[in-house]
Amino acid sequence: MAAALKFVGLDVGGTTMKAAVVDDYGLAGPSVSLPTEAHRGADVGLETMCETIRRAVAASRLTMTDVAGIGVATPGLMDIKLGIILDPPNLKPWRNVEIPQHIRKVFHKPVAFQNDANAAALGEHWVGAGKGAPSLVLFTLGTGVGGGIIVDGRVLEGEHSHGGELGHLRIDLPDRGRLCGCGRRGCLEAYASATAVVDRAREDQAGYRGPTRLREMLAADDVSGVSAKDVFDVAAQGDLLAQKVVEDTAYYLALGACAVMATVDPEMIVFGGGMTAAGDSFLAKIREYALRFGLAYPASKVQIRFAQLGSDAGFIGAAACARQLVKQG
Amino acid sequence: MAAALKFVGLDVGGTTMKAAVVDDYGLAGPSVSLPTEAHRGADVGLETMCETIRRAVAASRLTMTDVAGIGVATPGLMDIKLGIILDPPNLKPWRNVEIPQHIRKVFHKPVAFQNDANAAALGEHWVGAGKGAPSLVLFTLGTGVGGGIIVDGRVLEGEHSHGGELGHLRIDLPDRGRLCGCGRRGCLEAYASATAVVDRAREDQAGYRGPTRLREMLAADDVSGVSAKDVFDVAAQGDLLAQKVVEDTAYYLALGACAVMATVDPEMIVFGGGMTAAGDSFLAKIREYALRFGLAYPASKVQIRFAQLGSDAGFIGAAACARQLVKQG
Repeated sequence: MAAALKFVGLDVGGTTMKAAVVDDYGLAGPSVSLPTEAHRGADVGLETMCETIRRAVAASRLTMTDVAGIGVATPGLMDIKLGIILDPPNLKPWRNVEIPQHIRKVFHKPVAFQNDANAAALGEHWVGAGKGAPSLVLFTLGTGVGGGIIVDGRVLEGEHSHGGELGHLRIDLPDRGRLCGCGRRGCLEAYASATAVVDRAREDQAGYRGPTRLREMLAADDVSGVSAKDVFDVAAQGDLLAQKVVEDTAYYLALGACAVMATVDPEMIVFGGGMTAAGDSFLAKIREYALRFGLAYPASKVQIRFAQLGSDAGFIGAAACARQLVKQG
Repeated sequence: MAAALKFVGLDVGGTTMKAAVVDDYGLAGPSVSLPTEAHRGADVGLETMCETIRRAVAASRLTMTDVAGIGVATPGLMDIKLGIILDPPNLKPWRNVEIPQHIRKVFHKPVAFQNDANAAALGEHWVGAGKGAPSLVLFTLGTGVGGGIIVDGRVLEGEHSHGGELGHLRIDLPDRGRLCGCGRRGCLEAYASATAVVDRAREDQAGYRGPTRLREMLAADDVSGVSAKDVFDVAAQGDLLAQKVVEDTAYYLALGACAVMATVDPEMIVFGGGMTAAGDSFLAKIREYALRFGLAYPASKVQIRFAQLGSDAGFIGAAACARQLVKQG
């Protein structure tokens, strides 16, 4: 009997890239990481990608001949069909870089290319929170808010590679909403990213005259020492200011979930990234707001969960893309 | 050579149902209509459906043996997979009615079942505004705002039959948005339906002290004699109040389009229903706002058009559903 197919998944991030061999059942071998060092330019970056792939294969005690295909996930604006990174803010100065073409030339293997949040969604769908679900939408919460949509087991890429750009779903009118990093107002990312959570804590202080632990932390903070995790932590310890910020975060995320229910109407909505540490009470709040503000029928049926693969979702999902490419042509 | 396959498409509306035979290339024979008379109950309704189908076949000088499949589109809340109309507000007192099962039993043919706005989107995709486009999102503007999403040539039904419920995309926060018929606040339908357009005109009067044609019409209006079409008509004649209402309508629809770009990212966004009479300047306004408030890349690429099939979109789309059922199993 032939050995099960094996794939390499590579997740390229702003600071590190991470890869592992993943088998046909979604089981990952040991992962390896290398610094991205985007400032050294795209050529160095492409070589680092190849090296990370080689090390991942070696870490699984395999050779490249064992590998059926390679999947690469990258952040930021891209043209997925053309295989080009356009102008990713966190991979400067890379610009119009052909990724899969290069990897393919080096390894002579089928190479899949995907947006990192889309890949993470596919990873969660394959062997994570959404295993077995026919459709799934992932919100990834970090510096920004990313998203990925899986329908019938496949990434909804969109016609211009912007499918599932859920951080830029608008939840408030553009003339009065919070200012987003994209330059527009009212995007979900301006409310629910890790940065936005801390920003809102700072703004909400005025409403809490008494001393709260979070106020003290914010006051002692030189520039940006307080993290979203800190806000969630002190909320769990009973801090009223922090609890208000967390409550509002659940409300904003639920509004994002409502927009997804009225468009894609998925079986499951999954929240990944930094806020998975917030615990089930946070999910319960999101559910409560989704029921209150969403369409009654899908809101009562949709499953709302935390992601399960953590930071492995990206490379597992990238491997899943390679697997789909190899198996489905 | 065998004759090309033929399908019957039936579009069940609140007041009339309409059907025609549609051939394998999307060409429709003469359409026939019968009153829905929902108040007479579901049994009468089901028999009227069958009679409309029979008359459509006769109108095309065919017999049922020429028909390869039948597609039925109905409004309101349904379970598409189970083939059940749940509790449609404009087909009262129908409730939990099995539609395709009945039609199948009567005609012994494959029967497809679909939401009417989804069917209209598929019709426009097949032989209307979206012919040849890989993906398309339709907003249908009428008493309410309906929607349909086509990806890779198929309806995105959603897991709970709520895919493409675009009238309930929220464009303002739920604590201060306009009240929607669904009982929630901030839904697109509360801003951009025909009813909402007239309501906004009434509210905006206060800002226009001078006499305007629209003010006069609203003042003379006993209850609901002024229509959205009237508002668009007098706007085209230069009425300032009406022009403001039309401008705002384009703005709200663009916000709906932005949400669609950040989730589905379709090749094309199509506006159908009452406002297609508003002309290209109205589309141009929607495009302008979409560029200003949407994600730059998809907003610059997406095609924004009017629907082309008018009120035939429903039955042509229903026939398209039957065609997909027959051809793709």
